[in-house]
Amino acid sequence: MSEFDLIDRLRQIICTRPGSVSPRCVVGIGDDGAVLDVPADRHLVVCTDTLVEGVHFPASTEPAAVGHKALAVNLSDLAAMGARPAWFFMALTLPSENPGWLDSFALGMARLATDAAIELAGGDVTSGPLSVTVTALGWVEKGRALLRSGAKEGDLVVVSGRPGAAARALQDLKMGMEPDASDRNCLDFPVPRLQLGLSLHGLATACIDISDGLGADLGHLIEQSGVGAEIRLEKLPVPASLESLDENQRLPLQISGGDDYELCFTIPVSSEASLAGIAAACDVELTVIGTITPRSGLIFKTADGRIYKPSRDGYKHFDDRETVST
Amino acid sequence: MSEFDLIDRLRQIICTRPGSVSPRCVVGIGDDGAVLDVPADRHLVVCTDTLVEGVHFPASTEPAAVGHKALAVNLSDLAAMGARPAWFFMALTLPSENPGWLDSFALGMARLATDAAIELAGGDVTSGPLSVTVTALGWVEKGRALLRSGAKEGDLVVVSGRPGAAARALQDLKMGMEPDASDRNCLDFPVPRLQLGLSLHGLATACIDISDGLGADLGHLIEQSGVGAEIRLEKLPVPASLESLDENQRLPLQISGGDDYELCFTIPVSSEASLAGIAAACDVELTVIGTITPRSGLIFKTADGRIYKPSRDGYKHFDDRETVST
Repeated sequence: MSEFDLIDRLRQIICTRPGSVSPRCVVGIGDDGAVLDVPADRHLVVCTDTLVEGVHFPASTEPAAVGHKALAVNLSDLAAMGARPAWFFMALTLPSENPGWLDSFALGMARLATDAAIELAGGDVTSGPLSVTVTALGWVEKGRALLRSGAKEGDLVVVSGRPGAAARALQDLKMGMEPDASDRNCLDFPVPRLQLGLSLHGLATACIDISDGLGADLGHLIEQSGVGAEIRLEKLPVPASLESLDENQRLPLQISGGDDYELCFTIPVSSEASLAGIAAACDVELTVIGTITPRSGLIFKTADGRIYKPSRDGYKHFDDRETVST
Repeated sequence: MSEFDLIDRLRQIICTRPGSVSPRCVVGIGDDGAVLDVPADRHLVVCTDTLVEGVHFPASTEPAAVGHKALAVNLSDLAAMGARPAWFFMALTLPSENPGWLDSFALGMARLATDAAIELAGGDVTSGPLSVTVTALGWVEKGRALLRSGAKEGDLVVVSGRPGAAARALQDLKMGMEPDASDRNCLDFPVPRLQLGLSLHGLATACIDISDGLGADLGHLIEQSGVGAEIRLEKLPVPASLESLDENQRLPLQISGGDDYELCFTIPVSSEASLAGIAAACDVELTVIGTITPRSGLIFKTADGRIYKPSRDGYKHFDDRETVST
């Protein structure tokens, strides 16, 4: 199968599903580049993320999950910016020709693309060790993108969902154990919080997705906002499968585990009453877990006022030296 | 070095050079996504291409060349669309931490980014087998993108530069020979024909870059235009280093060799007189090599009217079965 046949196969599976064609894609797959029409009153938002086999997903991952996740991690970034998805580009590197694998991969990606109303507008297929780079494009009303830099002293820190389950699945896999099915589903088929991101316009003062772990990513948010944060450990929402763990096992998964594509955002105290309505409209749990403080640094406190120091504040490439996030 | 340190290092090298910052990049590296302002009267053009070590460049390639080429192949696609470069995103997968390699890589990329006035607006750095995916964004006046689909019967087929030298270098390397320095330069540091692409608005009826080889890519152009083409072999411009080769060695490099990032385009006969001025303005050779025919298929003819059948019409992944392009 030539590169052109591969691209055509992907195009057939991913592009001909209902809702996947927009008039704003003037020229799609099949030319040297795509020609796209961004609405004049919108800013373009662009995100890119790579998944490498053995690094970002275990070799045992089913192909539909690889396809889903490669797109999902980018949609999660669009969500964190409050952007509406429009188009995506996929660079797929495949070790060998395997039509069955490719079809499952494409179906996993196509299902999510349809749900998110995002259109495949181009890509590249090459041979080599398995990896997928997706570049996702969306748009926001000009000046309304959710940034990491707007958190203010006194704002509440809110997290969506119950971070920790994906990290639990990954930990089990690394230890050679079969993960709980619902944890594995969180790891393989993360749900990007697109509707939530769109609902936070005019409400959130700052927003980030916590793909690298709550501690690491909240650390970026407060750093870029020039503030600090105090997180109350007893307020962290506990995933069902982590309820039986003791604190020493559970907290690192909740704070430092990556691969949960939830959003962490800040809102003024005066907006707290809006959270319940947004949670219901977006069908997602929203939990206030702490407060923005004037001094820099991220502090985790127990209910009785002790300070907890996580041993590792998130996933780091190339370096697993211990770090403290406070 | 963490992913964040790596990205920061790349940002310092690539982003702080003169001419690399535009007011239209509202938010660049450092948030979940970039926020970009596309001019209201322009269409966005997006291209993406991956280079994998050992597949798209030999492991012996100097890091500056990898950085240059990863960007150049995408700029060449923008050129083929007649687009003006604006921003690019880079997903870099690195096998191990190597600051010296990374600095050279980034410098090679930064030099070309400055020349092309394109700005690094985001990216991702992951660990794994060496590969680079660049997604390049540019823009064209609405409705003026150069497509593959507009060639008309009677149009002249024009090629820029002298395709074949990069393929010669690659062939030499595969045979364990040291390539001619100028051929190696064509392979490692291709010059995207951006100025030429911009000069072809209102003139070219169709355009493509010939990264997969003149035969393969001209084949795409005529297929998408619903026409055929007749190419005169004696008109193909011969790279200096290929002059001493006999025809049987030379023609496959000129017709089927990939990695020459030249443009192939069609123009009405009435526009032939404009070519000399454009060639001078863009400092590039332009050669009329054939004519668009009404019937489908691509035919290569010798000066005495014989038909030449290339054994291979371009680079194909996964499949090297012999094909005939006529």
